[in-house]
Amino acid sequence: MKAMGIRSGQAGAQLIEVEQPKEIADDQVLLKTLYTGICGTDRGIISGQLKFARPPAGSDFLIMGHEGLAEVIDVGKSVKQFKRGDIVVPMVRRPGGCLQCRIGRQDNCEDGDFVEAGIRGKDGFMREYFVDDERYLINVYDKSLGKLAVLTEPLKNVVKSFDAYRTVMRRSIAHCSDGSFDCKRVTVAGGGPIGILFALIFRSNGFDVQMFDRNDHLGKLTDISEKMNIEFRISDGSGLPPNFIEGVDVFVDTTGSPSIVGRGLEGLSHNGCMVLFGTTSGGSYQLTGDVITSLVEKNATIIGTVDGSKAHYVEALNYLSSWKGMFPGVLEDMITQEDVPEESISSLNTKVTGEIKRIIRWSG
Amino acid sequence: MKAMGIRSGQAGAQLIEVEQPKEIADDQVLLKTLYTGICGTDRGIISGQLKFARPPAGSDFLIMGHEGLAEVIDVGKSVKQFKRGDIVVPMVRRPGGCLQCRIGRQDNCEDGDFVEAGIRGKDGFMREYFVDDERYLINVYDKSLGKLAVLTEPLKNVVKSFDAYRTVMRRSIAHCSDGSFDCKRVTVAGGGPIGILFALIFRSNGFDVQMFDRNDHLGKLTDISEKMNIEFRISDGSGLPPNFIEGVDVFVDTTGSPSIVGRGLEGLSHNGCMVLFGTTSGGSYQLTGDVITSLVEKNATIIGTVDGSKAHYVEALNYLSSWKGMFPGVLEDMITQEDVPEESISSLNTKVTGEIKRIIRWSG
Amino acid sequence: MKAMGIRSGQAGAQLIEVEQPKEIADDQVLLKTLYTGICGTDRGIISGQLKFARPPAGSDFLIMGHEGLAEVIDVGKSVKQFKRGDIVVPMVRRPGGCLQCRIGRQDNCEDGDFVEAGIRGKDGFMREYFVDDERYLINVYDKSLGKLAVLTEPLKNVVKSFDAYRTVMRRSIAHCSDGSFDCKRVTVAGGGPIGILFALIFRSNGFDVQMFDRNDHLGKLTDISEKMNIEFRISDGSGLPPNFIEGVDVFVDTTGSPSIVGRGLEGLSHNGCMVLFGTTSGGSYQLTGDVITSLVEKNATIIGTVDGSKAHYVEALNYLSSWKGMFPGVLEDMITQEDVPEESISSLNTKVTGEIKRIIRWSG
Amino acid sequence: MKAMGIRSGQAGAQLIEVEQPKEIADDQVLLKTLYTGICGTDRGIISGQLKFARPPAGSDFLIMGHEGLAEVIDVGKSVKQFKRGDIVVPMVRRPGGCLQCRIGRQDNCEDGDFVEAGIRGKDGFMREYFVDDERYLINVYDKSLGKLAVLTEPLKNVVKSFDAYRTVMRRSIAHCSDGSFDCKRVTVAGGGPIGILFALIFRSNGFDVQMFDRNDHLGKLTDISEKMNIEFRISDGSGLPPNFIEGVDVFVDTTGSPSIVGRGLEGLSHNGCMVLFGTTSGGSYQLTGDVITSLVEKNATIIGTVDGSKAHYVEALNYLSSWKGMFPGVLEDMITQEDVPEESISSLNTKVTGEIKRIIRWSG
Repeated sequence: MKAMGIRSGQAGAQLIEVEQPKEIADDQVLLKTLYTGICGTDRGIISGQLKFARPPAGSDFLIMGHEGLAEVIDVGKSVKQFKRGDIVVPMVRRPGGCLQCRIGRQDNCEDGDFVEAGIRGKDGFMREYFVDDERYLINVYDKSLGKLAVLTEPLKNVVKSFDAYRTVMRRSIAHCSDGSFDCKRVTVAGGGPIGILFALIFRSNGFDVQMFDRNDHLGKLTDISEKMNIEFRISDGSGLPPNFIEGVDVFVDTTGSPSIVGRGLEGLSHNGCMVLFGTTSGGSYQLTGDVITSLVEKNATIIGTVDGSKAHYVEALNYLSSWKGMFPGVLEDMITQEDVPEESISSLNTKVTGEIKRIIRWSG
Repeated sequence: MKAMGIRSGQAGAQLIEVEQPKEIADDQVLLKTLYTGICGTDRGIISGQLKFARPPAGSDFLIMGHEGLAEVIDVGKSVKQFKRGDIVVPMVRRPGGCLQCRIGRQDNCEDGDFVEAGIRGKDGFMREYFVDDERYLINVYDKSLGKLAVLTEPLKNVVKSFDAYRTVMRRSIAHCSDGSFDCKRVTVAGGGPIGILFALIFRSNGFDVQMFDRNDHLGKLTDISEKMNIEFRISDGSGLPPNFIEGVDVFVDTTGSPSIVGRGLEGLSHNGCMVLFGTTSGGSYQLTGDVITSLVEKNATIIGTVDGSKAHYVEALNYLSSWKGMFPGVLEDMITQEDVPEESISSLNTKVTGEIKRIIRWSG
Repeated sequence: MKAMGIRSGQAGAQLIEVEQPKEIADDQVLLKTLYTGICGTDRGIISGQLKFARPPAGSDFLIMGHEGLAEVIDVGKSVKQFKRGDIVVPMVRRPGGCLQCRIGRQDNCEDGDFVEAGIRGKDGFMREYFVDDERYLINVYDKSLGKLAVLTEPLKNVVKSFDAYRTVMRRSIAHCSDGSFDCKRVTVAGGGPIGILFALIFRSNGFDVQMFDRNDHLGKLTDISEKMNIEFRISDGSGLPPNFIEGVDVFVDTTGSPSIVGRGLEGLSHNGCMVLFGTTSGGSYQLTGDVITSLVEKNATIIGTVDGSKAHYVEALNYLSSWKGMFPGVLEDMITQEDVPEESISSLNTKVTGEIKRIIRWSG
Repeated sequence: MKAMGIRSGQAGAQLIEVEQPKEIADDQVLLKTLYTGICGTDRGIISGQLKFARPPAGSDFLIMGHEGLAEVIDVGKSVKQFKRGDIVVPMVRRPGGCLQCRIGRQDNCEDGDFVEAGIRGKDGFMREYFVDDERYLINVYDKSLGKLAVLTEPLKNVVKSFDAYRTVMRRSIAHCSDGSFDCKRVTVAGGGPIGILFALIFRSNGFDVQMFDRNDHLGKLTDISEKMNIEFRISDGSGLPPNFIEGVDVFVDTTGSPSIVGRGLEGLSHNGCMVLFGTTSGGSYQLTGDVITSLVEKNATIIGTVDGSKAHYVEALNYLSSWKGMFPGVLEDMITQEDVPEESISSLNTKVTGEIKRIIRWSG
């Protein structure tokens, strides 16, 4: 069967033939891959920029793919939660031995001793079939989601961030005087898939959301923003209207850009929160004593968050189903390209103009 | 225009003619009622059993109806969040002056100094048109919900309960060793609308749910349970299979029955939680020292919860949209009867055999 | 050396000779017992009423004593936190393999698979010397506490309860309109050592506390209450003044008595909390639908809590040091009797008139 | 009577004569000042660097002093919590009208609409007598604290920070695998009064603490650190041993220095927390994308915190009593100078070599 990945010491992604898995243990499930998503992490792996990317122990080939959607083909004898025909999303990160991992919160792993399917130390889902343990699979009950369920994996990160946001905001009253979040202004920096998902989660919880990105080649971000009833601007972070920066209650950075993060910090409201999600950007920001002083005086909170727990995958699926009805067309608009593996391999390393989320169809 | 309610000192509900509202203040919205739901509270008002029911100050007629769905007809000059044609759900409880009310959490009112539309001290939504303040309205973005959005009001209670549940469960690790809730067993006592909504919220968050009710005349509860993939039993609380009682992680009571609550308390697991929602039942339960001892030894938690905040209404709408895709047909199955006011008035005080949620269509 | 405990199948406590421990592993500490406290659990073990009491595996003698205070005599090679001469409190409960135990929260153990020194499956501290692992010892930095530090073990339970109380109270605003707890009324049922410690922890955090007990033979409870500036009544729970029952924000039961718990439930304020700590009482309480209704309408919370974590022992020591200065004489008043083992053995099973906390002096 | 403060438009502090207050309203208390502390804020006011400092409305003289300790001389008719002879600490910040202020959490004020005694818009406690409302006074029960209780005001800030720290750390398991905080490393930057109080609060809760400062002229920091059993280094933040920076679980900055904050951010452990308390420092730090990436990957949290609530003052008094016994001499060592007003006025604006906390004795 086909599998896509990288070989240690060789440049670029490769589409190779590997043996099809046949045996499953009692607590395992045999799966047929339907779709995989492509994100910046995949491109970082292909380009060699992500230093932590590595094949499974004893192998020199890493099958990529951490955003997966698959169909259950067969189940082991002790498997209870799945049956043939079920649609599932497999988890990316698998626990090590630390305190957080021991309770299923490897998303908060405190010693880095974990593996991640398709990224570090474990083969991913860019292959026609794979076998996985029951405990690392999430059931997709809403069949009407179809291929949109491939967004579960990136969304689970956002759900975890939102969860962390709500936890840290217990420092003070986080809501408005009417008990809602209508008065709370959220700026999302970056209109990639993660930025849009952040906009969706805050918007559907009643926040007043605004989003900006450096460009909107195909006008998709403008369209999506209208459908969500949020304000959108094309900007590199400079020249933004004041309401995007000043007195912002939540500033979500998905760019990783120090200058954008810095501007966000400067504008945070009292009891405001900066959510750091974006990584690996260049540039820098001159952090002054004045900004530190304002963070102190304002009881500000800044959180970095990564990955998500199994419960966050489940919650992500709830949100996808919800948004399909609440903001018709938005999730569909996010899937800007769909290829079969043979088509995708040549151009996998390049982001297409206007691309939001590109997916590979493995079956069906 | 038509309005339905009760007159002080007169038995039964009445359908009367009242003047149609025309004037709206700058921060108000003129609304056309689409649907109102009927629940046990309404019947308690009609029968006179709910002692706290009362008309607005200075009136001897209480327009009933606290489960509402309406369309925006006109908006005041300063209204920003709504425009003509929007669909909204109005809030029931309006704040008094206590600490909790002052921050928009009148659902936690600590002195009882509040009014509730259609219940105590304020006219409700069982009328063709009404005027309300912008701040007490919630926008229904998912138009595809249609009449199902009338379930928002009862659901917001359940969302608040689930929120309270999650807050109190921070006493210990509330999830399973894989980070999910797959291993957590929830028993819901009572298959009325509230019981079903509790089953839905726990189920869609990954819990292992089981529900029981005294009967299932039309087989709807059996159908609904199959659609949600939960176990259902007909029982009065005695003769339940052990898994419904022993080692239950969450026991949700929607019956108010002391004997059912008592059995639930006896069976709670370590770190288990009893959610009390049902009220005004007869009977009693002999609480012994042994049960108290086991609640102590098990670090058990019991929470009573009532009403919900504006944010819970918003979250309720998210869940409705989600469940429509995730558990097709379940919400529709819950609406067992739909009448126009003239039809409903005669039989409003009686629960029909097999009734889950009965609604009144006021327009459209 | 001397050791006190029970032999399987024989009535009463025995003072026997056992071999003195000499070897310690690298991560262990050799300890000389200074004091042990006696509590109701000890008496339940002696009388045979505590069914779960059992000797260590393979032994027919259980050395009792779970409230200990000891001096470090020698430390293993890898021990870092202790040196000869340090004063320590040893932990009672030792972890099993469940999720909660795995992270050091065996106080929330979810499967009962733990041992408790001096109670079940592990020898306790009623002996002249013992060896323990470094990780189960807490350093007593405040040497001026002297024998009062033997109160750490019972107090850690109370600290955990208070911690759980504060966690569950995050459901709503738990404090008064001035940010303090001055307006929050706490009733403590039972003036035993645990009742007094509950009164102290709430009082020193600014709550308005009142306590009652069935009697006060020696007038100590009256004295202690005056020193703490709290109201004290002699009562069996009936005939209490209204402020002890009606509109109480926190009702702490240390009696286990269903009738007292029941009265407390009836009187809880909106957002009120019942803390269940007392166990193994007789009697019963008729729980009606009206009481359940009021728990629901009031958003009430009931928590059972048992044991405490290592962090709670540490916090308990902080409180003891604090109270010694804040409420002079109160902790000293609690120690109503001090005997050497030979004196205590004959009367160990009987509570002396007016006894609050009785301790055994093993050394010095 | 004497009062110390600044006159608008005039340089330096002045000791002036003002009329002694005589009338008190029913809910007010007449107080005789015992001690006031001096801190950096006072010096910022005198030097004119604190731009927000201002006299009460309608006055051109601001009586300074926000760290106060006073004795009750007389109480109004409706005052219940205080009587003549009681010792009290007055609160600094008084609420405005925002959501947080309305519930007594003006320490989290979201619009800046508050006054602060001795700082902005309200006269402070550097005068022989003053009148205050009952609700802004905290009772000092532990008379043995004596003048040390003047540390309550600075400490309440630290207690609030620790409270915020514990709240935000609920994102993951914050403790060690034995349930304690023994394994958690805390670095405190800055050995001023606030730095020492942070070291004390973390140390007494079982954390492994280390502290550094640029110098230790009189050796007091070295002494204090030995008494607390923590590691102390003289350093400007560069050249620190690795354990002060790498893998630090909590980094507390009391310097406000961007370069120190930056180094702390770089070294944070997984799930680590940076507590920002220091303000108004010069210098800057080059925040890079790599540091942002590591904050994300590590699920790091950064909190700025300021002021504290009434409950934090109460808790501060508990801690002072506790530390007096637990770390003998440390609090006493912190008071490095005590003057009468006439002595202090000339040198108020200069920090004396080796000064930690300087206080003014107003009476007794």
